[in-house]
Amino acid sequence: MREFILFSRGITREFKLNDLPNAGRMDLIARCISTAIFLSYSLRKDVKFHVVLNGPPSPPLTVTFFTNELKNVSPDERNVASHINIAIKNFKIGKKNSEPGIYIDKKSFEQLVREKVEEYGSENVFYLHVEGEDIRNVEMENDSVFILGDNKGIPKREENFILRNKIRKVSIGKIEYLSSQVIAIINYEMDRRGL
Amino acid sequence: MREFILFSRGITREFKLNDLPNAGRMDLIARCISTAIFLSYSLRKDVKFHVVLNGPPSPPLTVTFFTNELKNVSPDERNVASHINIAIKNFKIGKKNSEPGIYIDKKSFEQLVREKVEEYGSENVFYLHVEGEDIRNVEMENDSVFILGDNKGIPKREENFILRNKIRKVSIGKIEYLSSQVIAIINYEMDRRGL
Repeated sequence: MREFILFSRGITREFKLNDLPNAGRMDLIARCISTAIFLSYSLRKDVKFHVVLNGPPSPPLTVTFFTNELKNVSPDERNVASHINIAIKNFKIGKKNSEPGIYIDKKSFEQLVREKVEEYGSENVFYLHVEGEDIRNVEMENDSVFILGDNKGIPKREENFILRNKIRKVSIGKIEYLSSQVIAIINYEMDRRGL
Repeated sequence: MREFILFSRGITREFKLNDLPNAGRMDLIARCISTAIFLSYSLRKDVKFHVVLNGPPSPPLTVTFFTNELKNVSPDERNVASHINIAIKNFKIGKKNSEPGIYIDKKSFEQLVREKVEEYGSENVFYLHVEGEDIRNVEMENDSVFILGDNKGIPKREENFILRNKIRKVSIGKIEYLSSQVIAIINYEMDRRGL
């Protein structure tokens, strides 16, 4: 499984689809998900995308998209965001499997990272960072987890948690890309290796 | 200058920002532009993005985003699309420089490609195609033009035109990516070479 964990400031209540940027950059979040899970006319297989929403009013919430089960999702930001909105609504009535392949739970970034370290081993979890080791020199497995932040990055406390867990920093270069561009590049680097 | 030419079915009249997919995949177009021109918190320098709108009612129209002059554009699809909408509206009253860095004209794909071949030489114009030469083996200059299609690709007639102009096919792999993903990868490959 290829997994992504996005630390975000996405808000944790329903939001307006006409103003995604003001919902804690829900546009960025949707774009990251779309970039991670879609290929032309198909969904990737075996990809899980987790976004941790750390915005008001009741953080954290983790929304997971699992491509092997997803239905009726389109690559446009508005559509992806609408499914996050539905998940938030469903969570309020206690429903954690919001739609096929879409899950939501009151899980923090640290809990999620800890789970993945236990599941895959810290050597298969990577923290995307400009100062990391060049991704082209890093050995990777099919089972790899990539952690990245939204436009404001990952706060110091969470970053310390990552590093304490022996998660390695990897880099795609000295340029600070949009989070969604980082994801496109990771997928591409993995694809080129036949992973 | 790094330039992109997107052959699209985008419609050539004003459209609803709440339904970009039904405006000839204006979501895809906006996502491509955003991916091409933005970095984290900044616009790239020296990038021109041309989208040829070939959808109804009055194709073709070419909209160009030039990063060195752009103002007030955000990376979300809705925002980018809103600027295309404004350009279409302005063109109706004869205004070809719609906003700073945003131009619109009644120019066809073939005219545009011909201009770029004359400007840069056909050796610096590349057609993204799964069957092309691996991009990592292709020498490139700072001045490079990349041609790609939307979700339906480039029609046979236009493709023949490209090939008659001695434009080379280059490939980023055997996987058919979203057009916006292709653009992220091209930028990344160029960036890694310091171009």
